[in-house]
Amino acid sequence: MKTITVNKNVLSKNDEIAERNQAALTARGIRMFNLLGSPGSGKTTLLENALAHPNVDKSKIAVIEGDLFTDFDAKRMDEIGIRTIQLNTEGACHLEADMVECGIEELNLNGVETLIVDNIGNLVCTASFSLGEHHRIAVTSVTEGNDKPLKYPKLFQTADYVVINKIDLLPFTNFDVDRFKADVLSLNPNAKIFVCSAFKGDGMDEIVEFLTK
Amino acid sequence: MKTITVNKNVLSKNDEIAERNQAALTARGIRMFNLLGSPGSGKTTLLENALAHPNVDKSKIAVIEGDLFTDFDAKRMDEIGIRTIQLNTEGACHLEADMVECGIEELNLNGVETLIVDNIGNLVCTASFSLGEHHRIAVTSVTEGNDKPLKYPKLFQTADYVVINKIDLLPFTNFDVDRFKADVLSLNPNAKIFVCSAFKGDGMDEIVEFLTK
Repeated sequence: MKTITVNKNVLSKNDEIAERNQAALTARGIRMFNLLGSPGSGKTTLLENALAHPNVDKSKIAVIEGDLFTDFDAKRMDEIGIRTIQLNTEGACHLEADMVECGIEELNLNGVETLIVDNIGNLVCTASFSLGEHHRIAVTSVTEGNDKPLKYPKLFQTADYVVINKIDLLPFTNFDVDRFKADVLSLNPNAKIFVCSAFKGDGMDEIVEFLTK
Repeated sequence: MKTITVNKNVLSKNDEIAERNQAALTARGIRMFNLLGSPGSGKTTLLENALAHPNVDKSKIAVIEGDLFTDFDAKRMDEIGIRTIQLNTEGACHLEADMVECGIEELNLNGVETLIVDNIGNLVCTASFSLGEHHRIAVTSVTEGNDKPLKYPKLFQTADYVVINKIDLLPFTNFDVDRFKADVLSLNPNAKIFVCSAFKGDGMDEIVEFLTK
């Protein structure tokens, strides 16, 4: 009987392409971030607010938007003057490295130093697929509740940065910031955690700094 | 060259088991609901609040909780006196019909009239797998933003009921309830839409009514 470990093959082929993406970007002096989180955690609003910051030189930034359908998010980037491309998976629940490779080929990255991939809203499958990013950012919001790190550990274990968003709504929830931070750090002691409101603007300076430094 | 359409086979095998689940439950006079939504949309809080309602006869309800890891949600059901079982997929991003079949075998369903499956937080893959439910409920929250129906159409196309949760937070967001309802109905004219705050209790009477009637 022959056994084919489909998932392993898919992941190892993905990893090869991811490594190629990373090497090509590194050679051009470009850092890539992979932005992951639940649908509605505020990933695109975070980018809108951060990239419109006066300290940001927009000529040095590009964004790859991932969604199943629609080009809503690429239009939002376009409106604030950010070079962008929309990837539509038409049903697939996560981006893979080959899709991002296509995006990199299509985008004009001349002068770009920071490339940000705004992944599909999903806490599970997105975390298993490297795109070749240099840094991974998990975006979560206080309205999603305290149980997310332990329920979806892979995302929090593999994120270099964790952003706790929608802090303006904290007084109206039962979210416990300290407990959430402790759970993240129990899974990933090296994670750097930020707290912000992308909608209202609180705490955005630090996020702009790490995205653009 | 031989081509194997893996996904089609997986889905058709799933559908067979789903039909078997539905037939077995129907024969016993049990209706099954499948509750889907983003991580943190409030599915479990909705169940907690609805099933603790004075009009609910808890002996007639059972809940199957689905998560990758942890038994947090089954414990929450246990605390309010609801018969429950926790399914852990250990990495898989959605429940499939065979997992629910195991849950049905393990649960004592004597006297139960309503079985509710609290699916994994995911707007994509969960929508592709029937569990054999008689009715599908999509739970979304005003903090997730207006773009979800058009970005994740399959869930909203296949839901019999759509619950707009966290309405208590509406004044602090830019969510437009009428636009959201119009987008849902453009995808699925037969969807019945409810607005509530599972956390604060607003609008729960109607939800309790359709869950238990």
